Amino acid sequence: MNALAASSQQSPLALICGGGSMPLAVAESVTKSGRGVVLFPLRGVAEGIPVERFPHHWLYVGQIGKCMRLARAAGCRDVTFIGAMVRPSLWQVHPDLKALSLMPRVVAAFRGGDNHLLSGMGKLFEEEGFRMVGAHEVAPEILVPQGILGRIEPTPRDRADIGVGLRCLHAMSPFDVGQAVVVADNNVLAVEAAEGTDQMLARVAEMRASGRLRAPAGSGVLVKAAKSTQDRRFDLPSIGPATVAAVARAGLAGIAVLAGETIIAEPNRVVADADRANIFVVGTAGSHA
Amino acid sequence: MNALAASSQQSPLALICGGGSMPLAVAESVTKSGRGVVLFPLRGVAEGIPVERFPHHWLYVGQIGKCMRLARAAGCRDVTFIGAMVRPSLWQVHPDLKALSLMPRVVAAFRGGDNHLLSGMGKLFEEEGFRMVGAHEVAPEILVPQGILGRIEPTPRDRADIGVGLRCLHAMSPFDVGQAVVVADNNVLAVEAAEGTDQMLARVAEMRASGRLRAPAGSGVLVKAAKSTQDRRFDLPSIGPATVAAVARAGLAGIAVLAGETIIAEPNRVVADADRANIFVVGTAGSHA
Repeated sequence: MNALAASSQQSPLALICGGGSMPLAVAESVTKSGRGVVLFPLRGVAEGIPVERFPHHWLYVGQIGKCMRLARAAGCRDVTFIGAMVRPSLWQVHPDLKALSLMPRVVAAFRGGDNHLLSGMGKLFEEEGFRMVGAHEVAPEILVPQGILGRIEPTPRDRADIGVGLRCLHAMSPFDVGQAVVVADNNVLAVEAAEGTDQMLARVAEMRASGRLRAPAGSGVLVKAAKSTQDRRFDLPSIGPATVAAVARAGLAGIAVLAGETIIAEPNRVVADADRANIFVVGTAGSHA
Repeated sequence: MNALAASSQQSPLALICGGGSMPLAVAESVTKSGRGVVLFPLRGVAEGIPVERFPHHWLYVGQIGKCMRLARAAGCRDVTFIGAMVRPSLWQVHPDLKALSLMPRVVAAFRGGDNHLLSGMGKLFEEEGFRMVGAHEVAPEILVPQGILGRIEPTPRDRADIGVGLRCLHAMSPFDVGQAVVVADNNVLAVEAAEGTDQMLARVAEMRASGRLRAPAGSGVLVKAAKSTQDRRFDLPSIGPATVAAVARAGLAGIAVLAGETIIAEPNRVVADADRANIFVVGTAGSHA
């Protein structure tokens, strides 16, 4: 470990918080490890998070300069993005002077895929002397481990579907498309793009309800995997209780994600819900090559 | 041309009709060429077609034996599948004895992708001495020609999006997924799988309405292309007036398909509607390699 890394480990972590349960999980995990955190919850997306338990500053998405200033004042050197981001409407952005001065590059970042958006924003922080750190680096226990998480095990047919899903995601990887597909009986039923995993699963549930799918209920797998081109510091795939509920509604047999490269929110609840719904959750080894 | 081909050209064409306007267009085109047709409209999907203008026999999807018997009695040797197929509910199938005797193989065909379903059914006809012929072979004027169809031209940005879409479809081709994607500003916004093109476009329209897309209205392209593994006799991609309307609702700039490998229904209306909606329609050359 070099001197910079050692010193930055002592400094509190600036945690820029989107929505969902992950920001709190990461904040708790980092705090438990003995390191301080400063939360920067984003207005319009992070409202549900009990940030008052930590030092925090509410921000509009566009207040990049204010964020950097407050983070520096708190002694932060490392910055982590965590939580679900919904692309903000323009009137919610509230750009500050710093953001305005960077606007051409912010716009350029926005014009790329989600992947480029986050890594583009990360680069702006790095140019100002901050270090971008992945949530999985500061709180590794948020990652899905290898193996079967609950009581339900995938069948050989499910395992074949997982293989098809991983290969399909790998093939689409250069296109910065989604991170998830639904596969049943070797057929790719749905591919996630800009709509996100939840909407894709809702679509599968609808097709199931309207008799459009030939695969019987209780078959099919949600397969999620980070794009091979993805900077894992900015946007790891994640699952949580809502994923289990959506998979159950879609009538699928289970969930497969890449072990060590997928964030899991509320793992105990995920396992309990999945067991109750007869859904397997598996962290598969290795890459999707 | 060998003797069989010559003689089968004289025989009337058995046209197994799904839904939409294509069956009528093909029946008219074949009749105009001087060849007789016998229509086999499928109950539950082909109800809107004015079949009474041609010799015809209504069939349930499962009446394979009846279809072969009637086709033979009418002197047909060539069989063409044409029109939109919605996967039938079981109670709509009405299998006859022939279908029941073939059931294991019908089920096997059903378990593959749509591609396998149609080519599997085609193989059953071929084993009984029929020749499966693509609609584009008997009615080549139903295909999209190369070039720009209406008055609106794609911009260089649109052309770049078309390239991304064709490459993405090509990458997914081994997976028997969909035949269409929506691309805007180099981002793949939606990928078609089991839901079909119309539902995919409706999704883009919803995302547009909810502010989820960063691409401005009037940008983005629907790109359709046959899978490289696809038997073009059974399932060519198609566009028609409904496609133009859905693309307009989704706020896209235009439609790109592979010239010579895409069926166009009601071409005059497609062009008129597209011109009025400020949407380009282009048949692109060559393959998606």
